[in-house]
Amino acid sequence: MNEERFERGSEILKEVDSRTVEMLTETLGDIAPDLARYTIEFPFGDIYLRSGLDLKSREVAAVAALTALGNAVPQLKFHINAALNVGCTREEIIEVIIQMCIYAGFPAALNGMSVAKEVFKERTNNKSVAKK
Amino acid sequence: MNEERFERGSEILKEVDSRTVEMLTETLGDIAPDLARYTIEFPFGDIYLRSGLDLKSREVAAVAALTALGNAVPQLKFHINAALNVGCTREEIIEVIIQMCIYAGFPAALNGMSVAKEVFKERTNNKSVAKK
Amino acid sequence: MNEERFERGSEILKEVDSRTVEMLTETLGDIAPDLARYTIEFPFGDIYLRSGLDLKSREVAAVAALTALGNAVPQLKFHINAALNVGCTREEIIEVIIQMCIYAGFPAALNGMSVAKEVFKERTNNKSVAKK
Amino acid sequence: MNEERFERGSEILKEVDSRTVEMLTETLGDIAPDLARYTIEFPFGDIYLRSGLDLKSREVAAVAALTALGNAVPQLKFHINAALNVGCTREEIIEVIIQMCIYAGFPAALNGMSVAKEVFKERTNNKSVAKK
Amino acid sequence: MNEERFERGSEILKEVDSRTVEMLTETLGDIAPDLARYTIEFPFGDIYLRSGLDLKSREVAAVAALTALGNAVPQLKFHINAALNVGCTREEIIEVIIQMCIYAGFPAALNGMSVAKEVFKERTNNKSVAKK
Amino acid sequence: MNEERFERGSEILKEVDSRTVEMLTETLGDIAPDLARYTIEFPFGDIYLRSGLDLKSREVAAVAALTALGNAVPQLKFHINAALNVGCTREEIIEVIIQMCIYAGFPAALNGMSVAKEVFKERTNNKSVAKK
Repeated sequence: MNEERFERGSEILKEVDSRTVEMLTETLGDIAPDLARYTIEFPFGDIYLRSGLDLKSREVAAVAALTALGNAVPQLKFHINAALNVGCTREEIIEVIIQMCIYAGFPAALNGMSVAKEVFKERTNNKSVAKK
Repeated sequence: MNEERFERGSEILKEVDSRTVEMLTETLGDIAPDLARYTIEFPFGDIYLRSGLDLKSREVAAVAALTALGNAVPQLKFHINAALNVGCTREEIIEVIIQMCIYAGFPAALNGMSVAKEVFKERTNNKSVAKK
Repeated sequence: MNEERFERGSEILKEVDSRTVEMLTETLGDIAPDLARYTIEFPFGDIYLRSGLDLKSREVAAVAALTALGNAVPQLKFHINAALNVGCTREEIIEVIIQMCIYAGFPAALNGMSVAKEVFKERTNNKSVAKK
Repeated sequence: MNEERFERGSEILKEVDSRTVEMLTETLGDIAPDLARYTIEFPFGDIYLRSGLDLKSREVAAVAALTALGNAVPQLKFHINAALNVGCTREEIIEVIIQMCIYAGFPAALNGMSVAKEVFKERTNNKSVAKK
Repeated sequence: MNEERFERGSEILKEVDSRTVEMLTETLGDIAPDLARYTIEFPFGDIYLRSGLDLKSREVAAVAALTALGNAVPQLKFHINAALNVGCTREEIIEVIIQMCIYAGFPAALNGMSVAKEVFKERTNNKSVAKK
Repeated sequence: MNEERFERGSEILKEVDSRTVEMLTETLGDIAPDLARYTIEFPFGDIYLRSGLDLKSREVAAVAALTALGNAVPQLKFHINAALNVGCTREEIIEVIIQMCIYAGFPAALNGMSVAKEVFKERTNNKSVAKK
């Protein structure tokens, strides 16, 4: 049942990044609500929780692919956050991005690193805000 | 010293896939021996053995990126072999390739899977030959 | 229910190109049967039959995107066939491919046209065989 | 004669989007006026009005290709506008963009949808301004 | 006049590579003769002979772009031949291809070098045949 | 020795564009200093000064590839500056970018030209400031 896929997808998505389900629904709600639904159902409801590959490795794969493709900054940002949320260290993410020099060239790696830098900074800021 | 990088790169490359150093040197020897050298020095001598990310995760990242980019069949073949040689299971590789549907579309995943199928078959055949 | 999506996807896929469901299932059956299933469920069970865009326009969009991306020959072949099967003329397909010069350059259009030529030839041959 | 191609291209371009000829000429006038001229002559003077494919289908093809390529935001914006100007509905454009999930992945479709959302909003605003 | 562009394009194309005009016309003649015509008119009739950049630099640019894009083997083959025909040395072509490691990754450079190797071999064979 | 490569790379990089070594080191210093180091060592220390291709041709190749790839704006900006600094004229750069229409489509060339326009303007402004 699709609702099952949607529920399953929403749940894992909320664990990974608490605001994304809402953000997808809000942003796409008035133009293409079905695209929001598919984005939750297929990547998260179908693929993400498949056995055979742990979540950390899935996020390594996502950060690698999106850095290499180089034209999906919002999604790379999401997956760097997600990687940190499922237990990857900053160092591991940096290493994945550096490695992309090899397969996709230095510009892809340098631009991916700018995105990582921004994400790391936001998280550090949020934490220091939360502490106060 | 570059020789150090080359030696270090050759060594790890031999562990990962015994024939590649020779193959690179032979194929490129008469046209661009320096490209063979750089391919050993930089990806393998500089990047591959960096601490901060284990070899299995590096191969997950490589298979992900090359499947997503979709225009580097010989290199994807190499890294599916390499992934298996450093301890990834066939199932894990299959999962990484399926996941690429999300970021790069179904054609990228389907064509990556054809390459995996070919590699798995070659390895099964080689093993059954070796057994006799 | 997923089975519903699979059934719906298989049905439309069979109409569009009679051999593809079998081919997908056979090719992927021993390595990644779930990728075959997803390829039927999502693109065909979810997207293909959505109202709001007729099948002919969907195939125009598919041929355009795959010609422009330029790294998915088997899928372009499939969709040129599919386009013809849902009522596009050869001339319309040729026009879409020529137009891709603009957005993706002449190599993409020229290589897409080679694929179209091959598909057209196969169909002409099959027809003349069928006639005998 | 090139002037003929330029005239023909300008005319159709003006019909499709009234400001583009001027904008191209202004933006490129002091750096590469010939690129402005080629952009009018070849895509619009040569390709756009060819018989064999109606304008609506040409715009479906353009929106599909540019969404899938994912690195040409100003051109995608132009062609979403152009599609609406030649008679595509918002729904049809949304469907083409959703469909690109299949061939180019979810990031390409999601980012294409952001561009569509922006274009739709601008047009709605302009209309409500015009009404006053 | 378009005929002028076609004549001018054919002429320069014949100088660069004697068989291409015929090959284009033959290959595309029965399916998309206009694509053959555009390929001669625009790249060669309009762009190729523009002042402001010498032919050798134009071929350096072509080999660079096609190696980096990595999905246009027949066109890369053509332009490696063309580069040699307008006075680039083999060494210069090899250097351009090696340099692409930087911007597009090692797979792009390695696969571009395979194409160069093939072209160089064909030319050496043809020469030794011609000598007899 | 790597230090030798780093020194050699830094030196040539400083000649080409005086602020880049510092900028790389500053931007990446707190997140991935090794990526800064590799970017100096490999592209500039290893490749850039190789004999067999003059610096002007190397910059023609860089501008061509980065315009064609279309997803590396900061790097294209750097190399348009670098091209001017090693002796390319504005006209030559414009010609390279226009030529990319052929291999990568009009959007790639148009977007590359916007980057060139920005770089040219910055340099003109800097000069007129310097004059005062």
